[in-house]
Amino acid sequence: MTYCVGMKMNDGIVMVSDSRTNAGLDNVSTYKKMFTYSVGDRSIIIVTSGNLSTSQHVFKTLENDIDSSKSTNLNLCKNFDEIAEYVGQVSLNHSKTDGISINTHLGSNFLIGGQISGQEPALLMVYPVGNYINASEIKPFFQLGETKYGKPILDRLIRNETSLGDAARCALVSFDSTMKSDLTVGPPIDLVVYKKDSIQISLEEHLQFKTPFFSDLSSKWSEGLRNLFKELPKFDWEKEQ
Amino acid sequence: MTYCVGMKMNDGIVMVSDSRTNAGLDNVSTYKKMFTYSVGDRSIIIVTSGNLSTSQHVFKTLENDIDSSKSTNLNLCKNFDEIAEYVGQVSLNHSKTDGISINTHLGSNFLIGGQISGQEPALLMVYPVGNYINASEIKPFFQLGETKYGKPILDRLIRNETSLGDAARCALVSFDSTMKSDLTVGPPIDLVVYKKDSIQISLEEHLQFKTPFFSDLSSKWSEGLRNLFKELPKFDWEKEQ
Repeated sequence: MTYCVGMKMNDGIVMVSDSRTNAGLDNVSTYKKMFTYSVGDRSIIIVTSGNLSTSQHVFKTLENDIDSSKSTNLNLCKNFDEIAEYVGQVSLNHSKTDGISINTHLGSNFLIGGQISGQEPALLMVYPVGNYINASEIKPFFQLGETKYGKPILDRLIRNETSLGDAARCALVSFDSTMKSDLTVGPPIDLVVYKKDSIQISLEEHLQFKTPFFSDLSSKWSEGLRNLFKELPKFDWEKEQ
Repeated sequence: MTYCVGMKMNDGIVMVSDSRTNAGLDNVSTYKKMFTYSVGDRSIIIVTSGNLSTSQHVFKTLENDIDSSKSTNLNLCKNFDEIAEYVGQVSLNHSKTDGISINTHLGSNFLIGGQISGQEPALLMVYPVGNYINASEIKPFFQLGETKYGKPILDRLIRNETSLGDAARCALVSFDSTMKSDLTVGPPIDLVVYKKDSIQISLEEHLQFKTPFFSDLSSKWSEGLRNLFKELPKFDWEKEQ
């Protein structure tokens, strides 16, 4: 399994991915599921779930197309819609093993976030068949993969006006909860924070369970939840005791 | 969809179920998914997910078998393993429309909790094919149905030594999170608390969103989480600002 989150806040973009892959519980490995490209007038961050071969092919093709100055590449796309269209086509073409229809086992999903100078920051989700959607103003985040365990905390806290720091912390808590409940999601966690109009990646971290910041965040959160529980309203039958 | 939780703590049993059923998003209704029987030397609480016809048939059969003093009924089972075996057989027989093999569309799951006087409290999960397991000492809760959204908070907080009040509150928070993320789980929430060795149900509540206790719990939890976030460790790049 995989877990990825992308967020578009008023102040910028937060993108997070885990690194665990598995072909069965007895075949677990670690691969990076994040691609970053911050050159010239644009910063682009992509995270992916689905078929690893397709995802890796897409990331490799994006690099090769830049290196060979192909007529469509990340530098030449005019906006993030064109980037999403391009990523979708590269992904779809790789998943059509017979050249005609998609082999559903080979499908991959992508979240693309970032900004091109002079344009607004963007966050999009690309589906295995190559189409895509933009993030909603009302619910400014997307998830991929093992989405359910970590969704309630995002639903409760993530709004457009949430600060980048709070959004990144919330994403890490969401990952912490997911990793506690599902062994097929695992570290290192790749975290990127992009501040609006900076056109460069502000923070790029690879967090392990033992990384002091993550371990501190995780234990403070658990402890805080336990304390919070003590403050919740009591049942009448408890007061009688 | 459905969401049910059963917990076996050192101090007793907590059982919770939602009431929403749906046959497609355009066909939503409300049915009770909890059965309670507290007579003589025993208190038994059952919650269910799966095919509504099968679940209702099982609950009705349990009542009829007591009324007609059938050779196997809830009063005559010697222990909770026999009760689980009995419930499993009634469920399985109803799901075998051809009399031989189970129609998987008709399968239902059951959590059975409670106590028979002179025995330890028990919590068991019965599968559609009629077999069952007992709750683990290490992880003393079961879930049915839409389990993922509400599982992280249970994983973090529920231990054998958790008080019945904390366990019931934690279950309600788990339901609150699930109902915020999945519209196919909905109120009223049936909540039963059983105190060890009381052989009677200590608390039985039907909670709506507007029920003051539940609404108070829900808003205090949301507010507490937001405050807790403010206390979490800051990133270095935030401190620089």
